[in-house]
Amino acid sequence: MKTPRIVEVRQNVLRKNDEIARALRQRFEEAGVYVVSLVSSPGAGKTTILEKTASALAGRHCVGVLVGDLATDRDAKRLERSGARVQQITTGTVCHLDAEMVRTALEGWDLDALDFLFLENVGNLVCPSSYDLGEATRVVLVSVTEGEDKPLKYPTIFNTADIAMITKIDLADAVGFRHDDLAAAFEAVRPGIAVLETSARTGVGMDSWLNTLERLRASSRPIAKPEAADQSIG
Amino acid sequence: MKTPRIVEVRQNVLRKNDEIARALRQRFEEAGVYVVSLVSSPGAGKTTILEKTASALAGRHCVGVLVGDLATDRDAKRLERSGARVQQITTGTVCHLDAEMVRTALEGWDLDALDFLFLENVGNLVCPSSYDLGEATRVVLVSVTEGEDKPLKYPTIFNTADIAMITKIDLADAVGFRHDDLAAAFEAVRPGIAVLETSARTGVGMDSWLNTLERLRASSRPIAKPEAADQSIG
Repeated sequence: MKTPRIVEVRQNVLRKNDEIARALRQRFEEAGVYVVSLVSSPGAGKTTILEKTASALAGRHCVGVLVGDLATDRDAKRLERSGARVQQITTGTVCHLDAEMVRTALEGWDLDALDFLFLENVGNLVCPSSYDLGEATRVVLVSVTEGEDKPLKYPTIFNTADIAMITKIDLADAVGFRHDDLAAAFEAVRPGIAVLETSARTGVGMDSWLNTLERLRASSRPIAKPEAADQSIG
Repeated sequence: MKTPRIVEVRQNVLRKNDEIARALRQRFEEAGVYVVSLVSSPGAGKTTILEKTASALAGRHCVGVLVGDLATDRDAKRLERSGARVQQITTGTVCHLDAEMVRTALEGWDLDALDFLFLENVGNLVCPSSYDLGEATRVVLVSVTEGEDKPLKYPTIFNTADIAMITKIDLADAVGFRHDDLAAAFEAVRPGIAVLETSARTGVGMDSWLNTLERLRASSRPIAKPEAADQSIG
């Protein structure tokens, strides 16, 4: 079903996406906002981790979240309770966010005022992998309930991620989770990837995750912001 | 990113897929093989349910399985132990099976000898929904660990399914599964859909699932097979 014409159209789409993503990345860097995208299967726990993350950061940082779903604004409503600025992106039948959706959703935002921006992608282990969103760090979540072979079966999305977060670690015993098998699968497709283990329910691993975010943002921050640059997006 | 040209190409692809799927469906009916496709998120338990299903049917029926993954033949290897005839379809970067992949994978198969054929799609709640594979029944699996709102957030895949199977029901208490919320979500997007609850680990619900398969096949079977028809595929 993969005809030459489709390949050609797809390549054009990705090329256009990369251009927009590059421009977004430059804007994010100039504004001093650290941008983290989250990808995973449906139900791996992206929204729950983001709720806890945004709430924990709220006292110290200004946080924004863009959240992608095919339908409903349920996740945006959940995330708004954390105090973050939240914008839902509804993709209809499209199985991933793209850079243009991010740019459009950020119209009217003052990026200069943000410290962190999180991009929660559509729950999907395939489609989001090819689309650069201008993020500084991409985190792939995999829950202990999904099976230890997921990196081997969906290599591209793990290969394009910077951090792997194992979620729902509180269920590890209940599902007979084999830690070593998942670690070996990570190493096979993305050697050396940073791995975090979390449970949003018990709080295990959340400090380590929050410290990682702080450290990443601190190490990326320019010494001085460019004073006169136009920081608006769109 | 959804340009008119992409929409046009996509419509042509789907039209072509529908033609091939219609031809497949006719062949399946003529051969008297009952075809069931399974769709779900990654890790919802399609392969495990199919292992148990194929093993349970093995004494009474001849079973075939086509199993789709982006990479690896791990699932095919797991399924072969059940005694079923198994063919892996490796899709590369494509996030779903299509009818042409099914047709190609069945080249050289004697469909007449099969009673059941299962099509395990790529783990994805978005892409597979638009692609008719010629199946008689489509089953969407959702595990209790994924969150009760999945039908609302991925309505198309639930709307195109005939049966919803709730998997990993043995974990319901551990994850605080809210049965009524999921039932309400099913009703909202696909009123009246048949719902089964299963645990491949404990065996709960497997009899009901196997009875459903037998009943569906019996009610679809023609009184007499056409004697002279060419049953080969491809």
